[in-house]
Amino acid sequence: MAIYNFSAGPAVLPKEVLTKAQSEFLDYAGTGMSVMELSHRSKPFEEIIQQAESLLRELMHIPDNYKVLFLQGGASTQFSMLPLNLAPGKKAYYVVAGSWGKKAYTEAIKLSKTIAFEPILLASSEDSNFDHIPSFEASAIDSDAAYVHITTNNTIEGTAVYDLPDTNGVPLVADMSSNILAFDYQVSDFGLIYAGAQKNIGPAGVTLVVVREDLLNDSPVLSSMLDYRIQADNGSLYNTPPTYGIYMAKLVFEWVKSLGGVAGMEAKNREKSGLLYDFIEQSDFYSSPVKDVKDRSLCNIPFVSPSDELDALFNKEADAAGFKNIKGHRSVGGMRASLYNAFPLEGVEALIAFMADFEAKHK
Amino acid sequence: MAIYNFSAGPAVLPKEVLTKAQSEFLDYAGTGMSVMELSHRSKPFEEIIQQAESLLRELMHIPDNYKVLFLQGGASTQFSMLPLNLAPGKKAYYVVAGSWGKKAYTEAIKLSKTIAFEPILLASSEDSNFDHIPSFEASAIDSDAAYVHITTNNTIEGTAVYDLPDTNGVPLVADMSSNILAFDYQVSDFGLIYAGAQKNIGPAGVTLVVVREDLLNDSPVLSSMLDYRIQADNGSLYNTPPTYGIYMAKLVFEWVKSLGGVAGMEAKNREKSGLLYDFIEQSDFYSSPVKDVKDRSLCNIPFVSPSDELDALFNKEADAAGFKNIKGHRSVGGMRASLYNAFPLEGVEALIAFMADFEAKHK
Repeated sequence: MAIYNFSAGPAVLPKEVLTKAQSEFLDYAGTGMSVMELSHRSKPFEEIIQQAESLLRELMHIPDNYKVLFLQGGASTQFSMLPLNLAPGKKAYYVVAGSWGKKAYTEAIKLSKTIAFEPILLASSEDSNFDHIPSFEASAIDSDAAYVHITTNNTIEGTAVYDLPDTNGVPLVADMSSNILAFDYQVSDFGLIYAGAQKNIGPAGVTLVVVREDLLNDSPVLSSMLDYRIQADNGSLYNTPPTYGIYMAKLVFEWVKSLGGVAGMEAKNREKSGLLYDFIEQSDFYSSPVKDVKDRSLCNIPFVSPSDELDALFNKEADAAGFKNIKGHRSVGGMRASLYNAFPLEGVEALIAFMADFEAKHK
Repeated sequence: MAIYNFSAGPAVLPKEVLTKAQSEFLDYAGTGMSVMELSHRSKPFEEIIQQAESLLRELMHIPDNYKVLFLQGGASTQFSMLPLNLAPGKKAYYVVAGSWGKKAYTEAIKLSKTIAFEPILLASSEDSNFDHIPSFEASAIDSDAAYVHITTNNTIEGTAVYDLPDTNGVPLVADMSSNILAFDYQVSDFGLIYAGAQKNIGPAGVTLVVVREDLLNDSPVLSSMLDYRIQADNGSLYNTPPTYGIYMAKLVFEWVKSLGGVAGMEAKNREKSGLLYDFIEQSDFYSSPVKDVKDRSLCNIPFVSPSDELDALFNKEADAAGFKNIKGHRSVGGMRASLYNAFPLEGVEALIAFMADFEAKHK
């Protein structure tokens, strides 16, 4: 049975990438070694990490005055690293439009008990279950602040920020974990971007940070591993990096490039998500919890049927029919189709056919 | 050409493990997905991480009152996490017997500028280029201290601690990165053990922590990701873990078990390293920088020829002959044969034949 993997992350990877990785799993480029067995100080691995960075720079049009870091610990570690490096002695604003944005803010509050800085909740849509992107006035932002933090795509709630807000000249910082390389943002609009790899980049265990050089910390922070400056000065090789994950990311970057780059990905994602949103809109059985069309994510599409019971039945029957991991996040319920870059169009078409069939049976 | 990979880490992995991983790379256990594509909340991945923990408990005879954590960030992140969680308000002693132990101590000093605790240098062999394990008197240790930190195997210098020191009742904490599963330590002798995976466990990007429950922090630390208690309470799933690395570790644990467990590994490592040490001893061309036989590592065997020029020539010719990554660490020079669990006996025999030939030509 063909399966389609709608997981929100770790997520489906391009079949071409997996096949290539499998073919050279035991012997990378004639070295007689697996990529996993390469010393991170060896020439073959140095080439891998340099190519990964160079491809990413090309794909995202990263200006020369930005550093690219391949780190560990996920976006959750960035929730602490970011204020630890950028915010000491300053204000840091948070726009909380989803569960992960709330975690970023909560971790900043936790850190501020030890490190002197002031995390400020600039806007939140928590009162309406994060069903939209909250707005704010630029005039509410102190221009001396360290940054304004946003989450560009809310994985759980299915919303996204496409029109970037006015931040009164303060650097915009983004957790881009779930739509990096899926929507064609301009890096120069951000002071710092971070993303866990396990949605659009590669396997879990790699965290990408793209940071404008002038924002790098001038003073050492309390741990070398958490110090952007040290990581940047060492080209992500301060200690042993997650070598295999970086190799897989490089293969994914090559795949993205071969399909027209990030603009090509965005076009495909508009087509895939458009099909599903259009189907949901024309149905009076399914509905989207995100009412404002401009806030709808291209990557994570939550939807519900008329009842919790039917949602449960849908999830059970969908799983049996090969539509895997389509159950909504445990915190919100319903269904969620995560349609990242590697998710195929045929999978969306098959899902829509299944949804139509389910609707006909249970309407 | 057959190659032998003497890398100090990331290092050689068992061929059987790599072959199995390759065979199920595209379709794990009939899921239709790669392990890399499995949600970390899915049943197949939950089984993987539970089996990995269960196998490790069996292999290391880990008592029930110890937690096993699969984290990220390498031993270098533990240099900060350890004092952050265990040492606040207390003394923490460091035995510095090599470059990595020195880093652990240096990071503790760095952290102590923000978090109130007192890192104390208990003993050091730095004055003699870390050519031996320094000793100390138990009476020098305040029994109220948080821990005494040692490095069980010094990867760069080729020394190891086999007879554990008397710590006056204070918990012994060990960086076991380069000889975990290679020498049969008793976990109950330690309060906490940590290890980067990339030598004897699996690919880089997984960090193992084994910690006695009563040592877990009672108060939250400044970052949830750095909080042992939070990681333990969430079974290493507080955020997305490095799923593929944990899967590879599980395969390595199965392989270790199939070969007689850690005792079986230790016996093989004694045989492999014994052959090389015996050859070096009988030669008056090669010599070991570690004079005290009881301090010699089973895993990392540094050696030198009579001159820097001959060392350089040896490294060049060895590489050309397929003996890869045998050059000593950039900080010490010479040669270093890292003979971890997965390194085959034939590779040691082939190296000795090459060394004998080189000696005959250049004596």
